[in-house]
Amino acid sequence: MRRKGLACMAAQAVESATPAPSDVSLGPAAALSCRECGERFPLGPIFACAICFGPLEVAYDLPTGDPEALRRRIEAGPHNIWRYAPLLPVPPDVAARPNLNPGLTKLVRADNLARELGVTGALYVKDDSGNPTHSFKDRVVAIAVEAARAFGFTTLSCSSTGNLAGAVGAAAARAGFRSCVFIPHDLEAGKVVMAAVYGGDLVGIEGTYDDVNRFCSELIGDPLGEGWGFVNVNLRPYYGEGSKTLAYEICEQLGWRIPDQIVIPVASGSQLTKIDKGLKELIALGLVPDRPYRIFGAQAEGCAPVSRAFKDGHDVMCPVKPDTIAKSLAIGNPADGPYVLDIARRTGGAVEDVNDEQIVDAIKLLARTEGIFAETAGGVTVGVTRKLIEAGLLDPALTTVVLNTGDGLKTLDAVAPTTGPSAIIRPTLDSFREAGLA
Amino acid sequence: MRRKGLACMAAQAVESATPAPSDVSLGPAAALSCRECGERFPLGPIFACAICFGPLEVAYDLPTGDPEALRRRIEAGPHNIWRYAPLLPVPPDVAARPNLNPGLTKLVRADNLARELGVTGALYVKDDSGNPTHSFKDRVVAIAVEAARAFGFTTLSCSSTGNLAGAVGAAAARAGFRSCVFIPHDLEAGKVVMAAVYGGDLVGIEGTYDDVNRFCSELIGDPLGEGWGFVNVNLRPYYGEGSKTLAYEICEQLGWRIPDQIVIPVASGSQLTKIDKGLKELIALGLVPDRPYRIFGAQAEGCAPVSRAFKDGHDVMCPVKPDTIAKSLAIGNPADGPYVLDIARRTGGAVEDVNDEQIVDAIKLLARTEGIFAETAGGVTVGVTRKLIEAGLLDPALTTVVLNTGDGLKTLDAVAPTTGPSAIIRPTLDSFREAGLA
Ligand SMILES: [Zn+2]
Ligand SMILES: [Zn+2]
Repeated sequence: MRRKGLACMAAQAVESATPAPSDVSLGPAAALSCRECGERFPLGPIFACAICFGPLEVAYDLPTGDPEALRRRIEAGPHNIWRYAPLLPVPPDVAARPNLNPGLTKLVRADNLARELGVTGALYVKDDSGNPTHSFKDRVVAIAVEAARAFGFTTLSCSSTGNLAGAVGAAAARAGFRSCVFIPHDLEAGKVVMAAVYGGDLVGIEGTYDDVNRFCSELIGDPLGEGWGFVNVNLRPYYGEGSKTLAYEICEQLGWRIPDQIVIPVASGSQLTKIDKGLKELIALGLVPDRPYRIFGAQAEGCAPVSRAFKDGHDVMCPVKPDTIAKSLAIGNPADGPYVLDIARRTGGAVEDVNDEQIVDAIKLLARTEGIFAETAGGVTVGVTRKLIEAGLLDPALTTVVLNTGDGLKTLDAVAPTTGPSAIIRPTLDSFREAGLA
Repeated sequence: MRRKGLACMAAQAVESATPAPSDVSLGPAAALSCRECGERFPLGPIFACAICFGPLEVAYDLPTGDPEALRRRIEAGPHNIWRYAPLLPVPPDVAARPNLNPGLTKLVRADNLARELGVTGALYVKDDSGNPTHSFKDRVVAIAVEAARAFGFTTLSCSSTGNLAGAVGAAAARAGFRSCVFIPHDLEAGKVVMAAVYGGDLVGIEGTYDDVNRFCSELIGDPLGEGWGFVNVNLRPYYGEGSKTLAYEICEQLGWRIPDQIVIPVASGSQLTKIDKGLKELIALGLVPDRPYRIFGAQAEGCAPVSRAFKDGHDVMCPVKPDTIAKSLAIGNPADGPYVLDIARRTGGAVEDVNDEQIVDAIKLLARTEGIFAETAGGVTVGVTRKLIEAGLLDPALTTVVLNTGDGLKTLDAVAPTTGPSAIIRPTLDSFREAGLA
C-alpha cells in the first residue's frame, strides 16, 4: 500500500489491514477520537481524522467503582509511570516488559526559590530531569513503545534536534526495537553523541529541521517506511498521553490534591493539554476533590506565538520563525496552540514569555536556590513564574507547581558564557586571602 | 586555634572545643573509631587517629530487636537514602531537612546485556546516574551535609575535578550552606559550568590537582578555613558512610537478599569498602540472610594500582601516575586500596582493569543493550565484568550486580570520537534508499 500525505494517512484510518483492530489490546484505551468532530476510529497507527483531518486522541473506558480501591492499587504499584497503567493506553502487564520505566520524578518543595520570588504559598518544582534520559520525553516515548509493540512495528523513529532523539534511542535499545532517528546534519557534536550512543541508526539530513520533518512524512507514506513507528507522527495519539502522568504524579505527590496553579512550558502545546486532560480524569474518577485550578503556559520570547495570541485575545496564532536559546521549545507553529489558549482562558490562567537573558537568570536562580540544574525549558517556566507574579497574574499565596522538563547538562551552552570561576589563584593561602573569598 | 598538617589535626581529636561532643546528635553514630588500632574518639570533624594516624570511621549503636520491624520501618520510609536513617550518621529527622534526597536509584534487570556477556544468571545494573546531580557523589555529600550542620560549619568545600564539585555545589545551595569548591584552573569549560552553575564560589587554582589538594590541606589547618567543612577531608568519616546506602538499596531491591557477586569501581577504594561494611551490617541486623558474596573491584588500566597489587599478590600498592579517560577513577595512590585487596581476597572476588578502548566499548555495549548511558566509570565496571567472565573469575550462572556510578552526559568526550551518524543524506527517499538503512 502506498500512502501519500495527510489525507491518505487519514483515509487509512478505516482501511488499515495490519494489525486487525481487534488484536490490539492497550488496556483502558477504547478507540481514537477526533478532537474536532468527535468521530471515533479503532485503535491503530493513525493520527488524523478521516472526516475533518482533526487530531486524534485516545478515548478510554476508564475504571469505574470505588475510587479508594483504585487509589490503593495505584499506590501499591511500581515507582514509575506504570503505577497509572489503569489510566494509560498500555497493556495491563506493561510493568513486566522491558522499558525504561520513567516517571515518579521528584516533586521538590522549593522554599528557597519561594522566598526569592516572594511566594508565600507552597511552591514546588516537578523535576523531570530525573527521568532515565533526563527529560520528560521518556514518559511519552515509553507509551509510544507499547503502542509500537501492539501494532507490530519493528523500528522506532522520530525527527529530533535534541531530547527526543536520546529518549527514542535509549527506549528502543532496551525494549528490543531497532531505531532510526533523523536529525539535521549540522547538529552540535554533543547532541549527536547523546543521540547516537544507544547504537541505533542516526541519520543526518542535509537541510533544516523543516526538511527533516518533511522527509519523515514522505517516509511514513512510502513502502520504505513499512513497519516504522514514528513516535510523534503515526504513534502521536498514544505518545501524547504520556504527559498525563505528570498530572497524576503531581496530584498523588501532593496527597491526591490538585495544586491551585501549574506552570507548564509550551512547545507544541501537547504537554499542557494532556496535563489538563489528566487532571480532569482524576476528578472524574473521584481520585481528587473537584476544585478549580489555573494552568499557565510558558514560552520563550523568541518563539512565543501562543503567548502573543493570548495577550492579543486571539483564538488563532501567527506562526513565527524561532530564535531562542530554548531549543526544546522552538516550535514556531504549535499544533496544540489553540487548545492551550482555550485551557489558559478557561481555567483563569495565562500564557507568558521571557527573553533569553531572563531564561539564563532563571536557570541560575533555580540552581542556586534549590540545587536543580534545569535545561533552558526549565529556565522558561521559572522565569515566566516570576514574571506572572510581578504582573499579578499568578497568586503567590496559593500552592503552585512549576515544571522543569529537562536537564541543564543538555544545554550547557546556554549558561556557559556567564558561568565561570569566582577567582583564579595561585595555590597559596596568601593568594586565596587576596581573592577575598574566605 | 592554628592547625598544621595531619598530626595536629589528629591531636585535635580530643581537644576540639567546637562543638562540644555532647551536642552532636547523629542518630545511631556513637563515635569515630580508628580502622587500624581501634581507638575511639568522640564524634567531631576529624579524620585521622591521634594514636596511629589511621583513618577514622563511624562506629554505631545500631538498632537491636526485631529485624522484621526494622525492615517494615525502612520500607515505609521515603523513596531515598533517608529510609535507611536508622543505619546512618544522621539525625532522626533528617528527611524533613532541606537536602537533595538522593538514592533509591533504579536496579535495572539487564537481560539484554546478560545475553551479550554470556551471563545465564540474573544480571542487574545499579544505575546511580539517576541521582540528583547524576552521580553516586550525591549520596556521600548528603551525609556530609548533615555532619556539617551538626558541627556548626557554614561553608561546604571540596577539591574536585568533576562529579564532586557539582554534588557539593548543588547540595550546599539547597541546604542553605555557602559553598567554595577548588578546581585546577584549566578544567574543561563544560565541567566548570557544571560546578559553577549552583552559584557558590568556584576557585580555579593555578597548578595540578595535587596542588589543589595540598592547598586545601593548608586551608583546613589555617584560621582562614575556620567553619569550613571539606566533605572529603575533615568530614570524610561521615561522607564515606553514604556509600553504604548502595549496599542497602541493592539488597532491598532484590527482596532483602545479598547478590552473589557485585562489581564496584575503585577510585580511592572507599566506596567498595563501605559497600562491604553495609552488607555486613545488614547480616548482623538480621535484615538479610547470612550467605557468601563476592566483591570485585574494577579499575582503568591507566590507573590500576589496586588491580596490579591484586594480581601480584601484594598487600601494598605502588602509586601510579594516572593516564586514563576514566577521570573519576584516576586516583594514583588509593587510600583504601589495602582494604579493597583484603575484601576482594576474603570474599573470593578479584580486582581487574580494562584499557580505554575497552571502556568505550563497554559504555556503548551498555547503551545499546539497556539504554543506559554511563560515564567512563560505568564503562570500567561493565568492561571488567566481561573480562572477569572470560577469565572464569566471575560466575555467569550466579546473580550479579554491576555498578554504574555516573552519567555519560558528563564524559561525552570519551565516546565522541567513535560515536556519530550512520549516514548523512539529502532529504529524499532516493538518498535514504541509497544509504541502505531502510
Ligand atoms: Zn474529525
Ligand atoms: Zn589508630
